[in-house]
Amino acid sequence: MTSATSLFSPVEADLSLLSENLKGLVGARHPILHAAAEHLFGAGGKRIRPAVVLLLSRATGSEQSLTAQHRRLAEITEMIHTASLVHDDVVDESAMRRGVPTVHSSFGNRIAVLAGDFLFAQSSWYLANLDNLEVVKLLSRVIMDLAEGEIQQGLNRFDTDLSIEAYLEKSYYKTASLMANSAKAVGVLSAVSDDLKEQLYGYGRHLGLAFQIVDDILDFTSSSEALGKPAGSDLRSGNLTVPVLYAMQEQPALAQIIDREFAEAGDFDKAIATIHQTCGIERSRTLAADHTGQANACLAGLAPSPSRQALLDITHYNLRRLH
Amino acid sequence: MTSATSLFSPVEADLSLLSENLKGLVGARHPILHAAAEHLFGAGGKRIRPAVVLLLSRATGSEQSLTAQHRRLAEITEMIHTASLVHDDVVDESAMRRGVPTVHSSFGNRIAVLAGDFLFAQSSWYLANLDNLEVVKLLSRVIMDLAEGEIQQGLNRFDTDLSIEAYLEKSYYKTASLMANSAKAVGVLSAVSDDLKEQLYGYGRHLGLAFQIVDDILDFTSSSEALGKPAGSDLRSGNLTVPVLYAMQEQPALAQIIDREFAEAGDFDKAIATIHQTCGIERSRTLAADHTGQANACLAGLAPSPSRQALLDITHYNLRRLH
Repeated sequence: MTSATSLFSPVEADLSLLSENLKGLVGARHPILHAAAEHLFGAGGKRIRPAVVLLLSRATGSEQSLTAQHRRLAEITEMIHTASLVHDDVVDESAMRRGVPTVHSSFGNRIAVLAGDFLFAQSSWYLANLDNLEVVKLLSRVIMDLAEGEIQQGLNRFDTDLSIEAYLEKSYYKTASLMANSAKAVGVLSAVSDDLKEQLYGYGRHLGLAFQIVDDILDFTSSSEALGKPAGSDLRSGNLTVPVLYAMQEQPALAQIIDREFAEAGDFDKAIATIHQTCGIERSRTLAADHTGQANACLAGLAPSPSRQALLDITHYNLRRLH
Repeated sequence: MTSATSLFSPVEADLSLLSENLKGLVGARHPILHAAAEHLFGAGGKRIRPAVVLLLSRATGSEQSLTAQHRRLAEITEMIHTASLVHDDVVDESAMRRGVPTVHSSFGNRIAVLAGDFLFAQSSWYLANLDNLEVVKLLSRVIMDLAEGEIQQGLNRFDTDLSIEAYLEKSYYKTASLMANSAKAVGVLSAVSDDLKEQLYGYGRHLGLAFQIVDDILDFTSSSEALGKPAGSDLRSGNLTVPVLYAMQEQPALAQIIDREFAEAGDFDKAIATIHQTCGIERSRTLAADHTGQANACLAGLAPSPSRQALLDITHYNLRRLH
């Protein structure tokens, strides 16, 4: 099985530089945030978002050398993503992420809110200084969408009437919007045709949705050790993901258990067992595969290159996480 | 004594419209934030920032009717200000503001972080859609400065070596940057000369510093009822403002009490009494008056108008808060 890191070989050196830049950015001037920065930009992160931006930058014409603007865009995407994770962990009161304690559980709400605000602020400052209004609009849309997605997820807790469409909309806001709009922003910086810009957007959108669906499946099929957080934690907190939604279609009794928010003894274990008895997980896998195919189709307009190949490989790597 | 509201008479109707727009913006789509929106944009706010933007907009050439861009800029300033207040209250663990419980104490950290993020996100989206890169840069600088100021305030708690310069820098970041840069942004939208833009920036900067200094004096001279929060709360939390800094110059013993973070019985009351025995408050008032004069001098380049007069009156109103 290919690891995420070797997938990114065409941009490996670029990603190392990016990590150093991000750590220096947050930690250097602010001792209070230094530990948080090491924590956030140290080991552990998959860096899929900046890798996709860097690979798309190379695949759309900068195969030899990246421009400073493309590099800065990659940094901005990771900063926005990280800022939203830090605040989500406060909002969701999550204790663990990727096997390590979250910023708010290590350093307190105070530092977590400050660190997230600092990263959002720094990213909008960097963004403005890319001097490209179209890119500013694309990425500020992402910041809106992230807030919208987190609010929708809050509103929809334990809502057993949630549709697959509403789940996909929330997943777009929380995960796919950043990939889709940053991919399109690469197209803007590389001055590709409007048609290709939309294809890049489509790649990011379908890749983002496929990643979210696979993450949501893994919450049911992986061990707590592999996840780095307790298995089934989405369901326990009332975040109803696509395997649950499909399972409820087959087993309406599952909805009753969820409606009462696992109030009776054994409810949660019964819910997990029920989901595994249905085709919910299998149908979710099919949905992820469908978005994977659509993502790859969007790359048809790019000339063959090592970077384009890596972009195709990433989508397959995502599905292989399920094996 | 003129109230803040009657000061704003040239833009009273504009401010009513702005309040309705802001309440609708946050509350309409998100029941979860509706109560927070009523709380944030209902009664109580002084709306000095949007009033200054609207008055400057009229004074720089739109005396008859404001453009949609000027109105939107005023909304953005109030959204950014409100977002930062909500997050500051989480960071500072403040229970009360303007005599009412803070969002995080009424609705919890969860909603406070979400509401602040939503407002920051919405403001950067509005900002991008003003379609003016220079304005985007000015206001994203403000968002950076707000985060920087809050971090500096955290770093400097109980630091009795803090200089007046460092206090003014922190006050610029936390208060004056928004007024200064939004005033300059009005100049950009009104297409005034570069020289006048800098004068508008100067007006906002000096007005912001004068407001902060007066607020910091009132923390020692007002009752808890008038403040809407416990008197002396800045000092108690280690936020050393200019009256304290001047007082320590006269009475070095005060620094010892503060250095030990009021650990001994009676320390806090002794510190308050010491400050009142020095010229710290009087010297702070002189500093505020100095910035007031500088703010007003910056308006010399504007033609006389009811709006220009209101901008001058605001600076005097600020000083009169001390009587």
